[in-house]
Amino acid sequence: MLTNRQSIRIEWGDCDPAGIVYFPRYFEFFDACTRALFERAGLFKRDMLKTYEIAGIPVVDMKASFMIPSRFGDDVAVDSSVTKWGTSSFVVRYRLMKGNVIAIECFETRVWAAHRNGKPEKLEPRSIPAEIKAKFGAGASNKNEN
Amino acid sequence: MLTNRQSIRIEWGDCDPAGIVYFPRYFEFFDACTRALFERAGLFKRDMLKTYEIAGIPVVDMKASFMIPSRFGDDVAVDSSVTKWGTSSFVVRYRLMKGNVIAIECFETRVWAAHRNGKPEKLEPRSIPAEIKAKFGAGASNKNEN
Amino acid sequence: MLTNRQSIRIEWGDCDPAGIVYFPRYFEFFDACTRALFERAGLFKRDMLKTYEIAGIPVVDMKASFMIPSRFGDDVAVDSSVTKWGTSSFVVRYRLMKGNVIAIECFETRVWAAHRNGKPEKLEPRSIPAEIKAKFGAGASNKNEN
Amino acid sequence: MLTNRQSIRIEWGDCDPAGIVYFPRYFEFFDACTRALFERAGLFKRDMLKTYEIAGIPVVDMKASFMIPSRFGDDVAVDSSVTKWGTSSFVVRYRLMKGNVIAIECFETRVWAAHRNGKPEKLEPRSIPAEIKAKFGAGASNKNEN
Repeated sequence: MLTNRQSIRIEWGDCDPAGIVYFPRYFEFFDACTRALFERAGLFKRDMLKTYEIAGIPVVDMKASFMIPSRFGDDVAVDSSVTKWGTSSFVVRYRLMKGNVIAIECFETRVWAAHRNGKPEKLEPRSIPAEIKAKFGAGASNKNEN
Repeated sequence: MLTNRQSIRIEWGDCDPAGIVYFPRYFEFFDACTRALFERAGLFKRDMLKTYEIAGIPVVDMKASFMIPSRFGDDVAVDSSVTKWGTSSFVVRYRLMKGNVIAIECFETRVWAAHRNGKPEKLEPRSIPAEIKAKFGAGASNKNEN
Repeated sequence: MLTNRQSIRIEWGDCDPAGIVYFPRYFEFFDACTRALFERAGLFKRDMLKTYEIAGIPVVDMKASFMIPSRFGDDVAVDSSVTKWGTSSFVVRYRLMKGNVIAIECFETRVWAAHRNGKPEKLEPRSIPAEIKAKFGAGASNKNEN
Repeated sequence: MLTNRQSIRIEWGDCDPAGIVYFPRYFEFFDACTRALFERAGLFKRDMLKTYEIAGIPVVDMKASFMIPSRFGDDVAVDSSVTKWGTSSFVVRYRLMKGNVIAIECFETRVWAAHRNGKPEKLEPRSIPAEIKAKFGAGASNKNEN
C-alpha cells in the first residue's frame, strides 16, 4: 500500500485564540496530502483532471478523531494512504503524527467526479480508471473492490 | 431542544477551482454556527470563556456527509442543535439546508476544555456546569447523560 | 457615490493566537463586501460573470492601513464604495468601522478580466461596459476616467 | 541584508473559481515567510514571543502589486527580507517569483507589539531590542533607523 509522509510546520495563521490549530485547517492540510500522495503515485493533479476529464475528487463522507492538539511552531507529519478502492470512490486515511504518537486520525471518502453535461453546478461520479488504481498498487484481485 | 438557524451566503472565496465550496470551509461555517447557537442560549462566547475559565470548546470527534455541493452565490441555511450532553463533552448536529433538502449533515463532539496549570500547550476536559446545560433545555433527568 | 455597509461579526476562527483577527482574513471580508456592493448596484456576481463573459475582478494593486485591531466577538461594519473608474479597472475603498472610528482603511485596484482565448491560466483586462459604471452612478462626464 | 527564499506549492484549496490563487492567501504565505525569515536569523517565533514578552508582530501598513496570477499546481518561491528597521517597527519586503520573474511584490510594516497591562484586547508598540536587529545584520550605523 502506497503511503506518503508529508512534513508540516504549524504556522501562526493556522492557530486560534486558544493557541492551537483551528481544526478546519487540518482538512486543508489533509487535502494537500492527498495531492502529494497522488503525486507520489505519478499523478500530478492538474494534469490528471485534464487527462481524465474530471472536475475533482470531492469528499462525500468523512470522520476524524482529534487526540492531541498542535500549536504554532510544532513540526508534525501526516501519513496518507488509500485504504480502499471502490468503483467510483475511494477512502483516504490520514494519520497526523507528533513524533511516534498519532495525534489525529481521519478517513475521507472521495469521489472521482465530473461535471454533468459540462454544467459547473452539477457533479456526478465516474468510474475510476483501472490504471489509476494500479498506480497505487491496487490489483485486479483487490478484495476491497465494491 | 434549542435549535438555531443561520443563513449563509456562499462567497467566491469559499469556493475552489471546481466552483464549489472548498469543504474545510464548511467546518468554519459550522464553528460560527455553534457560536451563534450558544448565543441564542444566552451565552456570548467571549464572556463564557472568561466566566467559566475555559480555553475553548475544541472538537475531538466528528463525522460528516456531503450530499449536495454548493457554489458561490448560493444562499444556504444551517440548523444547529446540541443533541447530547455528557459530563465534559457534548454533541452538536449541523444540517446545511438548500431549501428543504439536507445538503450536509455533520456531528461534532466538543469538549469543555481548560488549560492545564495555565499552560497554553495543554488542554484538559472540565465538567460542564449544570447551568450551561439548563440554558439549552437539558434537564436533570437527561437520559443522554454519561 | 454608491456605498454599501456590511455588518460583520468577528468569529473565533478569524483570530490568531494573539486573540485578534489574523489580517489576511480582512481581505476575505473586503472581497465579500465588494460582492455585496455590486449586488446593491443590481449586479449579482455569478450572473455578471456569465453575462459579461469575464473570469472575475481580480485585485492587481492594494494598500491598507490597520489602525485598531479587532478580536473575536467584536461587531464591526465595513463601508465599501468604488472611488474611481478606469477603462478596464476600478478602485474600491473599504473602511472598517468600530463604532464611529475607522479601524482599517484599504484601497484595492481591481481589473475587469477575462480568460485569454479561454485558457484558464491567462487573464487579460477587458473594457468595463458603460452600463456597469452607470449602475454605480458614474456618469459619462466622470473626471476620474482614464 | 539577510534574505530567505521559501518554496511554495500552490494547492487546490488556495485557489478560487477562476482557477487562480485567492489573493488573501498570499498574505498567509507571506506571514509564514516572515516566520521563516526570523528563523533563518536564529529567532524561533514561539520562543521569541516568550523571551521578549511580546504578543506578536502585527501588520499595521501594507501595499502589494499583483503582476502575474498563479494557479494550483504551480511551484513558486518567495524572497523575504527586512528592508528597514525603525524604533518599534520594521518593513518586510516579499517578492513572489515565478522562475526569474517577479509575480508579486509586497511591503508590510510590522510592529513589535505587547499586550498593554496584560489585556488581550490592547496592543502597544515596544522598542525592538538591538540584539534582534543585529541578527539580521542591521548595525548601529544603520542609516534607515528612524
